[in-house]
Amino acid sequence: MILLAMGSESDWETLQHCAATLDRLKVGYQARVLSAHRTPQRMLEMAERAHQDGFSVIIAGAGGAAHLPGMMASATLLPVIGVPVTSRALNGLDSLLSIVQMPGGVPVATMAIGKAGAVNAALMAARILAVQDPELRERLIEYRQAMQESVLEQDGRVQRWQPES
Amino acid sequence: MILLAMGSESDWETLQHCAATLDRLKVGYQARVLSAHRTPQRMLEMAERAHQDGFSVIIAGAGGAAHLPGMMASATLLPVIGVPVTSRALNGLDSLLSIVQMPGGVPVATMAIGKAGAVNAALMAARILAVQDPELRERLIEYRQAMQESVLEQDGRVQRWQPES
Amino acid sequence: MILLAMGSESDWETLQHCAATLDRLKVGYQARVLSAHRTPQRMLEMAERAHQDGFSVIIAGAGGAAHLPGMMASATLLPVIGVPVTSRALNGLDSLLSIVQMPGGVPVATMAIGKAGAVNAALMAARILAVQDPELRERLIEYRQAMQESVLEQDGRVQRWQPES
Amino acid sequence: MILLAMGSESDWETLQHCAATLDRLKVGYQARVLSAHRTPQRMLEMAERAHQDGFSVIIAGAGGAAHLPGMMASATLLPVIGVPVTSRALNGLDSLLSIVQMPGGVPVATMAIGKAGAVNAALMAARILAVQDPELRERLIEYRQAMQESVLEQDGRVQRWQPES
Amino acid sequence: MILLAMGSESDWETLQHCAATLDRLKVGYQARVLSAHRTPQRMLEMAERAHQDGFSVIIAGAGGAAHLPGMMASATLLPVIGVPVTSRALNGLDSLLSIVQMPGGVPVATMAIGKAGAVNAALMAARILAVQDPELRERLIEYRQAMQESVLEQDGRVQRWQPES
Amino acid sequence: MILLAMGSESDWETLQHCAATLDRLKVGYQARVLSAHRTPQRMLEMAERAHQDGFSVIIAGAGGAAHLPGMMASATLLPVIGVPVTSRALNGLDSLLSIVQMPGGVPVATMAIGKAGAVNAALMAARILAVQDPELRERLIEYRQAMQESVLEQDGRVQRWQPES
Amino acid sequence: MILLAMGSESDWETLQHCAATLDRLKVGYQARVLSAHRTPQRMLEMAERAHQDGFSVIIAGAGGAAHLPGMMASATLLPVIGVPVTSRALNGLDSLLSIVQMPGGVPVATMAIGKAGAVNAALMAARILAVQDPELRERLIEYRQAMQESVLEQDGRVQRWQPES
Amino acid sequence: MILLAMGSESDWETLQHCAATLDRLKVGYQARVLSAHRTPQRMLEMAERAHQDGFSVIIAGAGGAAHLPGMMASATLLPVIGVPVTSRALNGLDSLLSIVQMPGGVPVATMAIGKAGAVNAALMAARILAVQDPELRERLIEYRQAMQESVLEQDGRVQRWQPES
Repeated sequence: MILLAMGSESDWETLQHCAATLDRLKVGYQARVLSAHRTPQRMLEMAERAHQDGFSVIIAGAGGAAHLPGMMASATLLPVIGVPVTSRALNGLDSLLSIVQMPGGVPVATMAIGKAGAVNAALMAARILAVQDPELRERLIEYRQAMQESVLEQDGRVQRWQPES
Repeated sequence: MILLAMGSESDWETLQHCAATLDRLKVGYQARVLSAHRTPQRMLEMAERAHQDGFSVIIAGAGGAAHLPGMMASATLLPVIGVPVTSRALNGLDSLLSIVQMPGGVPVATMAIGKAGAVNAALMAARILAVQDPELRERLIEYRQAMQESVLEQDGRVQRWQPES
Repeated sequence: MILLAMGSESDWETLQHCAATLDRLKVGYQARVLSAHRTPQRMLEMAERAHQDGFSVIIAGAGGAAHLPGMMASATLLPVIGVPVTSRALNGLDSLLSIVQMPGGVPVATMAIGKAGAVNAALMAARILAVQDPELRERLIEYRQAMQESVLEQDGRVQRWQPES
Repeated sequence: MILLAMGSESDWETLQHCAATLDRLKVGYQARVLSAHRTPQRMLEMAERAHQDGFSVIIAGAGGAAHLPGMMASATLLPVIGVPVTSRALNGLDSLLSIVQMPGGVPVATMAIGKAGAVNAALMAARILAVQDPELRERLIEYRQAMQESVLEQDGRVQRWQPES
Repeated sequence: MILLAMGSESDWETLQHCAATLDRLKVGYQARVLSAHRTPQRMLEMAERAHQDGFSVIIAGAGGAAHLPGMMASATLLPVIGVPVTSRALNGLDSLLSIVQMPGGVPVATMAIGKAGAVNAALMAARILAVQDPELRERLIEYRQAMQESVLEQDGRVQRWQPES
Repeated sequence: MILLAMGSESDWETLQHCAATLDRLKVGYQARVLSAHRTPQRMLEMAERAHQDGFSVIIAGAGGAAHLPGMMASATLLPVIGVPVTSRALNGLDSLLSIVQMPGGVPVATMAIGKAGAVNAALMAARILAVQDPELRERLIEYRQAMQESVLEQDGRVQRWQPES
Repeated sequence: MILLAMGSESDWETLQHCAATLDRLKVGYQARVLSAHRTPQRMLEMAERAHQDGFSVIIAGAGGAAHLPGMMASATLLPVIGVPVTSRALNGLDSLLSIVQMPGGVPVATMAIGKAGAVNAALMAARILAVQDPELRERLIEYRQAMQESVLEQDGRVQRWQPES
Repeated sequence: MILLAMGSESDWETLQHCAATLDRLKVGYQARVLSAHRTPQRMLEMAERAHQDGFSVIIAGAGGAAHLPGMMASATLLPVIGVPVTSRALNGLDSLLSIVQMPGGVPVATMAIGKAGAVNAALMAARILAVQDPELRERLIEYRQAMQESVLEQDGRVQRWQPES
């Protein structure tokens, strides 16, 4: 079971791609809004309780001075995966640096900025769970095969394309 | 009374310039190590209690994915001043963005990266307190006069200098 | 009373969010266009007179090579809060660095780039005034409660959402 | 068992901090030089075989146009943790972006640039393994307690320090 | 014969400008989708076989953590030209650094980000082939003359323009 | 007389603001397309002849790896003013650095990126000519007065505005 | 006569290269420390009086949130040349953006960061004065010839060098 | 035969690594100082004549606003390889963008910043020549084998290393 936390409702636009990928891999999750800045105590308690509440991995997405992934990682020993959400002014560079540049002692597994990072957070969570779950590993293999077939199909199409003159 | 918080002992190299400036302005302070990432609950509690503990302003310095200023600001309604400490790899750009790019609702008064920011955090705290404290305002006026005299002295010296050929 | 200065009329699009937040907190303000570059003497005089004119805090927003907050801070001992306005080419990174990287001696309390920074400038001004104003402190507590309730409502909605497949 | 891969011998200066942390947590590892650019087939084969060779997690560190973590992640379904090594010209910003900005489909759990990232890669690997290993979880709890005690000791020292005047 | 590889079908929007320029210069090419991350073995094999398959130059375009050009360069001794495709969040800065900052030993001839880089990749390939092909050199001279005439025509128009008042 | 050079016709969108400002100040100019990269000899010759052709100042605008201003400055001893044109991928940061970071020996007077820089190039040229031309100096004083009056008018409007709630 | 202004005595390390170049070109100057932030009124007055005090060009160097060149340009109609001094944390990128990104209406002729920019500020000032001063133009021609001879000498040496093996 | 051009004698520190690699591959070269900014006509002529002078490839290294590679590419149809030399203030980011962001029509094959780029420029030149030279291709194969053996040796050493505790 994955705890899929986000700093605000508006992050859902990005994190729904994480949820959709978890659905496709048949990995259960609970999506929650947990603001590090507006409800810090509640956020910390949710992270502290996550292990006993039955979660195995936490995915946290936030933008700007994004403190949610790092603060949750400070309050739990579960693996925490961070998704930098694209920010208005600096295009997510601030989100990325605020999440990835954690000091030694408290790791956050940081993904790419935006949609690609949201999809990959789901895949990283699945890889973590698949260490002990051969059936999930099978579904990851299928996911990879589908990707590879898509590359071959794209390759077929591109070989027939002509540049627009 | 100022709460002068830092994420780790190594930040003292920067923040002692803040302490020295507070000393010079005769503003009392308490210097503390309060890690957002390693002791989150203790940090939040210290911030929540700061008002009733008699603090009027919080200064918080940290580097890298610097969450200390923003998290303390989320747990208190006192003014929080953030000092980005120079980081090893990215020279404090990560510290700056992690502190300044706070979402609407939780402000951090961000200063320059490094020593200049540490000095200015003390001066900003003094300006805040001086709104209601005419004697502190006098000391700020003296501080400014000393700076201005220093400029005039520097000007005198530079007028006599010759370039090294 | 807050002096809400901006470098040009076009900054109002950003700074009206500051004004709206001050209105909501019932903090009085006067909005002014004061260009550091086009009317430097007038700008300096307004800053020098701000204390005797009854202002307690200055908020100054500007973009690009944004000199307004720093120059006003050089001419007054009131706390000055700077809001970097998003710039055309560099998305406000130039505005941010021009405001935050002040030399030791003249502090500017820098907020985030754009709308979030404008809202937070109002909240920072209110936190400064609330040090001596228990009623304003109450209104800040209410503001925070409203934010927290909004997080809970968002959390409720997100728990019911499904990803768009 | 962790596969601790690096792009070149010179990366050991950074990655030995990962090895030391794994030692401290009593997590076994094998350190290897596996160049994505100079021995691509060998690198891919090592990644493909890692699961059947008994590895559960891969840690890969590299600098500059760092392709090692992403390429290993493309050839295995094990969780891959990437450590951006500080580069000569761009201080590791190139390493960070080359590792973290992976396209959707192939995740790399990216850590901070340099030593802090190397330590955190070990802790992230341990958190992943601890999902199923209560004894390792105990050692992580001890590690965290030691960190917290260190914060309290630092706090004690800083309270007694005076700024160098 | 040029092997024109891209990481995904969506890169065609950029790389068709490369194809159109090759067409104009009458340089043959084969356009292929070859994902470094999704089909690594297939990509490496295609690069290893490129020389014996009759290709003289490889052009590879990719975005984000763009590993395709560097990985192909590691598996062949043909000249490899890299085109950084504009990425969503970081505007191609990540693509550029991931392609250009190759370690000593494995060169990638990197072009500008986006359309200009795609056009120039074709011209660079043609310059390489023209070292031994005087007829292609003639077509490059014609291409350059057309560019020069276009400058003169633009110059004529601009001399007649008036600013919109 | 000003030589107003641009790298391509598409730069006119930016540089027409320069032309319009020169018109308003009654400073004569000749607008030309002079590509450093496509017609290097012609560009160098135009720069070498500019003095004897009666030009006093050169304004040169270009984008991307913008070599036009620096190369013209290498071929003349007239003052050369550079305008970085906004580029597609990097928003003109590449244009700015390519123009401003000239080695010691060959100066380019660099302006801001885009429209503001184009307007300021005209004003800088006028300031240079006004050193010896009191009538032009008068027109610059009028221009400045108009700017100052505009600030006062904006100030009047902003004082009456209310935030959109 | 050139007014060579700097924000602080420590900027002399950079600006002495400007002074030395002016000496070599026999262009008179007066070096002054004029802080925009610490003595704003004095700085503005010096700029306002510069024309009647007999100065023809102002060179202003400053670092960090560098406001000196832009503020002097706002108070005079003389040409103002800005030199970004290398800053501690951000290597002069903040200095550069604070000087170059001026809004339309107030131009600053910005040079490269550091020593090269200081040398070029002197050369740009000389180019401006040489528009009306044929003897200074002769000295600029000699300066350029010396540079060209130096290139030829360097070329001779490099042709004889062997790489250190 | 390779023309190895550099903007100044000081670039030899970087480019000697290019020369040493060409020596090792037994590729002839002529090292020259050719300043785009200080001797533009001479530089253009050397580039224009390079083909008839018997050169097949040009390697050009320069730093800061590096115009040498792009300007040589504008005056020849030979393949031009650019090496961004590390600059003082911006660590070569300015050099890189000034070289790589060429407009469509004039390609420069850009290498990494600094020493790695210098080595790779030699290897890229060799790959270009090897398209028609089977013996050079053999030497490239040997070079690659030596690199691969070095990886294996490094791998052997790292497997025996222990972290410094």
